[in-house]
Amino acid sequence: MTDLNRCANAIRALAMDAVEAANSGHPGMPMGMADVATVLFANHLKFDPAAPRWPDRDRFVLSAGHGSMLIYALLHLTGYAQPTLDDIKRFRQWHSPCAGHPENTELPGVECTTGPLGQGLAMAVGMAMAERHLNGVFGDGLVDHHTWVIAGDGCLMEGISQEAISLAGHLQLGRLNVIWDDNGISIDGPVSLASSENMAARFAAAGWHVVACDGHDFASIDAALTAAKADPRPSLIAAKTTIGKGAPTKAGTSGSHGSPLGAKEIEGARAALGWNHGPFEIPADIKAWWEGLGARGAAARTAWEARLAASDQAGEFTRRMDGRLPEGAAAYQAHVASLIANPPKVATRKASEMALDALVPALPELVGGSADLTGSNNTKAKGQALFGAADYAGRYVHYGIREFGMAAAMNGMALHGGIIPYGGTFLVFSDYMRNAIRLAAIQQIRVIHVATHDSIGLGEDGPTHQPIEHLASLRAMPNVAVWRPADAVETAEAWACALKDEKRPSVLALSRQNLPPLRSDGGENRGARGAYRLVAATAPRAAVLIATGSEVHIAAEAARLLETDGIGCDVVSMPCWEAFATQDAAYRADVLPAGVLKVSVEAGVTLGWERWTGSDGLNIGVDHFGASAPAERLYAEYGLTAPAIAARVKAQLGR
Amino acid sequence: MTDLNRCANAIRALAMDAVEAANSGHPGMPMGMADVATVLFANHLKFDPAAPRWPDRDRFVLSAGHGSMLIYALLHLTGYAQPTLDDIKRFRQWHSPCAGHPENTELPGVECTTGPLGQGLAMAVGMAMAERHLNGVFGDGLVDHHTWVIAGDGCLMEGISQEAISLAGHLQLGRLNVIWDDNGISIDGPVSLASSENMAARFAAAGWHVVACDGHDFASIDAALTAAKADPRPSLIAAKTTIGKGAPTKAGTSGSHGSPLGAKEIEGARAALGWNHGPFEIPADIKAWWEGLGARGAAARTAWEARLAASDQAGEFTRRMDGRLPEGAAAYQAHVASLIANPPKVATRKASEMALDALVPALPELVGGSADLTGSNNTKAKGQALFGAADYAGRYVHYGIREFGMAAAMNGMALHGGIIPYGGTFLVFSDYMRNAIRLAAIQQIRVIHVATHDSIGLGEDGPTHQPIEHLASLRAMPNVAVWRPADAVETAEAWACALKDEKRPSVLALSRQNLPPLRSDGGENRGARGAYRLVAATAPRAAVLIATGSEVHIAAEAARLLETDGIGCDVVSMPCWEAFATQDAAYRADVLPAGVLKVSVEAGVTLGWERWTGSDGLNIGVDHFGASAPAERLYAEYGLTAPAIAARVKAQLGR
Repeated sequence: MTDLNRCANAIRALAMDAVEAANSGHPGMPMGMADVATVLFANHLKFDPAAPRWPDRDRFVLSAGHGSMLIYALLHLTGYAQPTLDDIKRFRQWHSPCAGHPENTELPGVECTTGPLGQGLAMAVGMAMAERHLNGVFGDGLVDHHTWVIAGDGCLMEGISQEAISLAGHLQLGRLNVIWDDNGISIDGPVSLASSENMAARFAAAGWHVVACDGHDFASIDAALTAAKADPRPSLIAAKTTIGKGAPTKAGTSGSHGSPLGAKEIEGARAALGWNHGPFEIPADIKAWWEGLGARGAAARTAWEARLAASDQAGEFTRRMDGRLPEGAAAYQAHVASLIANPPKVATRKASEMALDALVPALPELVGGSADLTGSNNTKAKGQALFGAADYAGRYVHYGIREFGMAAAMNGMALHGGIIPYGGTFLVFSDYMRNAIRLAAIQQIRVIHVATHDSIGLGEDGPTHQPIEHLASLRAMPNVAVWRPADAVETAEAWACALKDEKRPSVLALSRQNLPPLRSDGGENRGARGAYRLVAATAPRAAVLIATGSEVHIAAEAARLLETDGIGCDVVSMPCWEAFATQDAAYRADVLPAGVLKVSVEAGVTLGWERWTGSDGLNIGVDHFGASAPAERLYAEYGLTAPAIAARVKAQLGR
Repeated sequence: MTDLNRCANAIRALAMDAVEAANSGHPGMPMGMADVATVLFANHLKFDPAAPRWPDRDRFVLSAGHGSMLIYALLHLTGYAQPTLDDIKRFRQWHSPCAGHPENTELPGVECTTGPLGQGLAMAVGMAMAERHLNGVFGDGLVDHHTWVIAGDGCLMEGISQEAISLAGHLQLGRLNVIWDDNGISIDGPVSLASSENMAARFAAAGWHVVACDGHDFASIDAALTAAKADPRPSLIAAKTTIGKGAPTKAGTSGSHGSPLGAKEIEGARAALGWNHGPFEIPADIKAWWEGLGARGAAARTAWEARLAASDQAGEFTRRMDGRLPEGAAAYQAHVASLIANPPKVATRKASEMALDALVPALPELVGGSADLTGSNNTKAKGQALFGAADYAGRYVHYGIREFGMAAAMNGMALHGGIIPYGGTFLVFSDYMRNAIRLAAIQQIRVIHVATHDSIGLGEDGPTHQPIEHLASLRAMPNVAVWRPADAVETAEAWACALKDEKRPSVLALSRQNLPPLRSDGGENRGARGAYRLVAATAPRAAVLIATGSEVHIAAEAARLLETDGIGCDVVSMPCWEAFATQDAAYRADVLPAGVLKVSVEAGVTLGWERWTGSDGLNIGVDHFGASAPAERLYAEYGLTAPAIAARVKAQLGR
């Protein structure tokens, strides 16, 4: 049985039935791309429904995530354990793994969470980078697969797509193949309402191979996918399709994009497609055909498992793919001991580099980079080789001035597995990549953002480059650990915590300016508590000064001034709100006791600090944009000096 | 005297001297682009130093804002009142208008604040759109100018540049000319470390005219700029330059990019350039030559002023360019009266459309659009004509799936003047354009973001599309008004406030789901207070429930339940924190009285709400990502129903 039309129509039927049942969703894309997806799964994609996450599978990314019913249909038809037909019937309902947009945390067959447009493509670039990197390290026997993407016009209009395709072209990621669902329709109507660009020429300009096909002609599709695989460049397959193909009046229009077709249109589609089956009904022969497709991948997997078993790299490969850190932490401990022995007065960005100099050799899965701020972010460890077409085994990526693309690529590497990615830019430009950080949080993946120049301490570059609201806005995001260490020891501790935090992204906010050493102990990772008493009051305790990062030493100095006036002050260093929030109540009450004035000191907006300082607390910060001047001047003008803080504390205490 | 080399060297000298004096800054770009800028100002740019902001001037945007000394030197040399030589000597110091990056609020000759890469180019697209729009409305006699941009590799690697050039090509903005400083160097080293794309082909693919020149050959530059002006398409002028030209050892390297050259290198540069003058010393003949360049613009301005004086459109043109709203507000008042007369149960996104149906005809300066979500954002008013090459007088823009590019273009329109731009996308995608909102706030300009689907109320599209932390993160940003109206009347009030808010951007967070009418009064704009008592307690007041947007009616119902149990509850609607924070203390204390339980109810993170509810308050929200399910189910699962809220209030009160 090889009537591919019928096989593809099974996708169309499931898509329109599920959207209709949910009374919500996007039938047009799965119906338009059903033929292409059928050929991809039938003849090209290396996958094994029995082992959804075996390491050397091809990665399939539905960047146009609104077409989620396409992937749910494919996973179900080919015999993945999930989603079941019942799951599909409950598309978009509470607790169904068939969410509105595909989620990696819901279904093992979903490689990444998509929906925010452009990011699937950009994550796929990261996956393809990971594949080449691990191939460079472990060889063809263990790592040799493709990354396939389905992207729509929405993905390709988003700016991040340009960052992604430009980077992929530069890196010559020939195993990356992107199928463009060229249906000419977006939500507002024809794409021509908003865009006139020559997509093929655009990709070619970025060094891509471009091939076109008729997205409803199986032979044409197959030839294009075959050509894409064969070409050493990354490939764009421009597949001319009809959105909502089969729908009698809505096909080819935006009317099929984002709403249920309606009972009458579905009836017409069934007739037009010759699909004489009830809702959610898949004929046994068609289901059997789809389930047979996994055989190619199963054979490949078995052969791969044999090669892995025979490899002397099996243990290390498996450790990395499982995301387990190496046993022991000797490098970390030696690094902290050296900091205690010779306390450095350095910027925390420099302290981060010192940590990386210890960690990069000890953790071969660490792959770093920067969005063209290597020397400023201090992200490159000694001897770290460049990653690129000349040496994919290299571990440092010059991402170019592409923050969003970098963050999404990092997500893709983490999702691929085998790599712990970190990348640097200025904290203020976390704005550019904010939604990729959010997708890391949603996907529960370990990526580490090195966000330097983390306050007005950046100085002369001025307000456009001085983060003010960024700590608050990142703390607002669920499932992100935001670290702002105060000295070199705390920076090492933050790195240790970020590396262990397997299920969420971490942002390390680091200073441009030098900071004095504050910690003379390093046995226990005190920063891991999120907040701890750095200095205990000597005089009877009247206040607790809570500070982060570059303001901790200022708060400590303010406390000293207050103590000389007989006002007892604790100094609490609070490098990570999220970590502190998970400590037990007794610990929290000890660090931030009731009945005493609590004062926050941070060179950023005060929003949120009331959570720790309470109604009667004092919040010292910067609730306006900065200015262009040397850092010391800004700190003085904005009242972030020890004498100014001490004076405000005294005034608040009425002393 | 026409030794252009000497004239251009004046720029180089000022740049290297100012950076050296500041001990901070970027000399390489101004030194590399001095020749191009000299030809641009000498032969092409229409500008008048005596009237920096006359409406029909050409706009000059230094998208590569780190090269700020280029524009400071140009403004000073050509005779703008600011910056003075003293200002330049105080480059990057406290209160100098010569900030690290150019700021529109510091110098009248600076059209927009740049530095965050790519956004200058994208704002220039907005300026060029504004020019064509106003030309379409007022004709060639009043509006007929070009927009010139200098962009570097950093600008062009950023994804937003693709959104900008794609949009500009589609809209056929022939008066937009972008000079690419093709120096082959970025901060990490050669651009080739990170990029291999064919820039000319990329722009051509987007429908641009591309011309190349030798950026150090005056005739070549002039020919290219002349060709660019003549071509009906937007033009890319690829100017091959040497970064830091003149510096004996650092020219052509990243060493000249972002640090002072140092005394010895400067000495060598002076020798190499034949510049035998002391620091900050400009020979009188050279200064005179530069000051003479303004004559062309002065003549054009005088002629233009005569045309304006003779035009029967002078009053309306001037009103729009001054940003003054029309007298009276009859349309607004009639709209609110109709809402009171027939209270609609509609989503606030629909209420926003109803407001626009009234406001768009009354305010011809309103130019709206959406990033391909027109029908979802409800941004298109009845009869609003499309803006495009076929009709630049149209007032609705299909921005395509380009949120960041849209937001930056809106900034450019507002900066150009004559337009109040608004644009729509889902609130969650404010992430994509976040830094453009920030630049609007920094630049103190009036742009209005219509941010619909503002919570889990979005429902089935799931966590990637449900904003959770976005209200908090936008509130964290200085100088942004974040509105979340509760019903149609409050939505109209929010629009009225946003339109009057001349010095900051506004974000209108609007519901997808229908909301019952809550207000039966419309005489006073109560929402303008930021928060007000919607319902006063009947029983002795035990609690104040503070809610926003779609949760106000739920809080009101919870209060009713509590009142039936004898627990007196005020209900406060708080559509705008920023507006409430500026009310006097007595008003704030009346609305949020001390000594009574205060409860916040908002379908988003609770971060920051402690500011209003205090240490002993109760914050009811959603401190985790959402899920894919119908909205009602999510509200129920997350405890955002009247009975659940009432129960928590009771528990907190111990009743």
